[in-house]
Amino acid sequence: MPLDPERTVQELKALRELTGDEHGAQRVAFTDTWVRARDFLKEKLAELPVEVHTDAAGNLWATLRGDSEQELLIGGHIDSVPNGGWLDGCLNTLAGLEVLRRLSEQGRPPVTVRLVDWADEEGARFGRSLYGSSAAGGNIDLAEMRKLRDRDGVGLEDALARVGITLADAPQARDELKNAGAYLELHIEQGPVLEGLGLPLGAVLGTFGVERHTITFHGQAAHSGSTPMNVRRDAFRAAGQLAQEIYAIAERHGGVCTIGSCKTLPGIVTSVVETCEVTLDQRHLNAEHLAAMWWEAQEAARRFAEDGGCSVTFGDLWNIEPIPFHPELIEAADAAILDIVPQSHLLPSGPLHDAAEVARAGIPTVMLFVQSLRGISHNSIEDTEEEHLLLSVQALDRLTSRTIQWLVSRR
Amino acid sequence: MPLDPERTVQELKALRELTGDEHGAQRVAFTDTWVRARDFLKEKLAELPVEVHTDAAGNLWATLRGDSEQELLIGGHIDSVPNGGWLDGCLNTLAGLEVLRRLSEQGRPPVTVRLVDWADEEGARFGRSLYGSSAAGGNIDLAEMRKLRDRDGVGLEDALARVGITLADAPQARDELKNAGAYLELHIEQGPVLEGLGLPLGAVLGTFGVERHTITFHGQAAHSGSTPMNVRRDAFRAAGQLAQEIYAIAERHGGVCTIGSCKTLPGIVTSVVETCEVTLDQRHLNAEHLAAMWWEAQEAARRFAEDGGCSVTFGDLWNIEPIPFHPELIEAADAAILDIVPQSHLLPSGPLHDAAEVARAGIPTVMLFVQSLRGISHNSIEDTEEEHLLLSVQALDRLTSRTIQWLVSRR
Repeated sequence: MPLDPERTVQELKALRELTGDEHGAQRVAFTDTWVRARDFLKEKLAELPVEVHTDAAGNLWATLRGDSEQELLIGGHIDSVPNGGWLDGCLNTLAGLEVLRRLSEQGRPPVTVRLVDWADEEGARFGRSLYGSSAAGGNIDLAEMRKLRDRDGVGLEDALARVGITLADAPQARDELKNAGAYLELHIEQGPVLEGLGLPLGAVLGTFGVERHTITFHGQAAHSGSTPMNVRRDAFRAAGQLAQEIYAIAERHGGVCTIGSCKTLPGIVTSVVETCEVTLDQRHLNAEHLAAMWWEAQEAARRFAEDGGCSVTFGDLWNIEPIPFHPELIEAADAAILDIVPQSHLLPSGPLHDAAEVARAGIPTVMLFVQSLRGISHNSIEDTEEEHLLLSVQALDRLTSRTIQWLVSRR
Repeated sequence: MPLDPERTVQELKALRELTGDEHGAQRVAFTDTWVRARDFLKEKLAELPVEVHTDAAGNLWATLRGDSEQELLIGGHIDSVPNGGWLDGCLNTLAGLEVLRRLSEQGRPPVTVRLVDWADEEGARFGRSLYGSSAAGGNIDLAEMRKLRDRDGVGLEDALARVGITLADAPQARDELKNAGAYLELHIEQGPVLEGLGLPLGAVLGTFGVERHTITFHGQAAHSGSTPMNVRRDAFRAAGQLAQEIYAIAERHGGVCTIGSCKTLPGIVTSVVETCEVTLDQRHLNAEHLAAMWWEAQEAARRFAEDGGCSVTFGDLWNIEPIPFHPELIEAADAAILDIVPQSHLLPSGPLHDAAEVARAGIPTVMLFVQSLRGISHNSIEDTEEEHLLLSVQALDRLTSRTIQWLVSRR
């Protein structure tokens, strides 16, 4: 069988039919609907000359033996957020399936090629994303995982047990990467950059490092009627100034900064805001720029607080270093795109992906992005032009061939 | 008995002992503690040659008959917010009691003088302030009142019945104002103006009109990592610009503007804010300036929304027109202050007071303010220097004498 990207689109639609409803995709990890999606994938894999197994963390592997034990991995995740889109995660898996079909038709490849469907990339239910890939990458803290509960109070450990996974064994998934020579992943962009450039495909430079903090301005509650403007210590005013300044900080460094939420206390119409807490999420592909962005945000917050008679405190929410992908694989991805279309584009990934956990584990990694319409994902209106989906399967196939050559050439 | 302002301070302290706890004053209207405070006041009144009765709305009246049926009213409210201050409302009542004592010693006054303790000025329990004075002023909507519930689900009507008040009869309280020729009220400033000027006393020009609205900016939720800064439609950024602009608007017109609360949707750290709702409270003593301030706030909100690719909608919360006090009584109040101290100050009232309802009913009205420490009220740390409390009782007494003269001179 030659590569048939049309089949991938048909399978994406069949999966949507099987596991979605009028609100969108419902393939939340470890639920019955997710099991149904996995079964759909397993049925397809059963038609191929591949060995299929589920690892100790719940990741599903399909292995096409090659002349060498060295492995090329192609990854995706069939799980979705609740009311999710039809492409986020499963495009990667089903495009990888199609590449595996094409390869298996052509006889034994020079290296072993494996498709992996990672478990719980989204972390939608327990708030911890990249579970399966971080287990395989050796970046999992069992004690932390055991504390996780969904909104109904069900623990992660119990939810895993229900689908036959023993959390205590999850770190054994690390064995799966021991022969890995490269990792490839296709994903929808989930942002507006490629659409803005009018390009279908891009090669991904790596995933942004993230600094995520709370910034709390402390002013003075005061009666909205009796307090002259010039004696106010207005915590919301200071936060509002920061909301402008983060655009200048992001522009100076070429990263992104987001204030995503704001809480006000006492938060009543008749009082000046005493306490205003905002969350700040900053991302950059370069660790030095990222550190500078966070430092400048703190300096600005202190300045606005002081100007307005307030004080400011900072809290840590989460951070992760930038994870650059492999330079030669980025070149290969760029070349694979140019095999298919006249123009490529190199861009960083704002969101994290399983690829980041694999790259952190020291495996040469790269990703391909395909254009997202309106930059929207995690929503039932997430979409990509069908023509672009077809091109993305072709590009992943080309990148697979180029990466096999690259692995062979490095021996 | 000559006027004894020291006695007022002693009575304020006794009342605090009787009706407060370590969290502050607990004289919430219609509660047992409020009834205890009223009983304290009634015991004091029983020693004077005055007629005491409770009107149909639950306001307590003490009447010192004079040569004329024409009446001078002195008002206050013994109710407090929960965990309130020791002065807000009861200073007015107990200072009025002291003035009544002084007058009753001097024989029959030329006009009838009445002390009124308004019921439920604060509206702390049912969210509707100025209940008793609005009933007397003829500005009460029984259907609206019947809908009110406290946080335990108890209806206002039942709470009133418990203390012997029939809500349906409340509008009959209007009869109480039929002979009123003037209304006086002393109150703590509840703001920082007099403290800032180093002055103990001020004459009040009237109560601010209020425009109270919601302003909702509508942008686009977008991933905090994948969305370049220049394509964002950030509802919080627009709200943050408005937070600065309201200071310019207030300065241009000489009023006050407050954004007291901010809600963000989806309100998560990983998304640009799609919807940002703020409340805006604007106040001015002049109706034209107040209207201009609200118009300018809307124009600014539209401009910031448009600049940031957002839209904006407006909602009405509440409004009230400015209520200017009587020019000749403002002069009298200013003169009464200058009888006592070398310097007076004219200032508007940001908060509403029972005096506003009386003035709206067409009764010539004025208020005196005494300095508040740190501008703080509705809090157990609310305080005023004792020396200033003594001066305030003297000033109210002087204002009473001047207003009696004024009433006599107008016949």
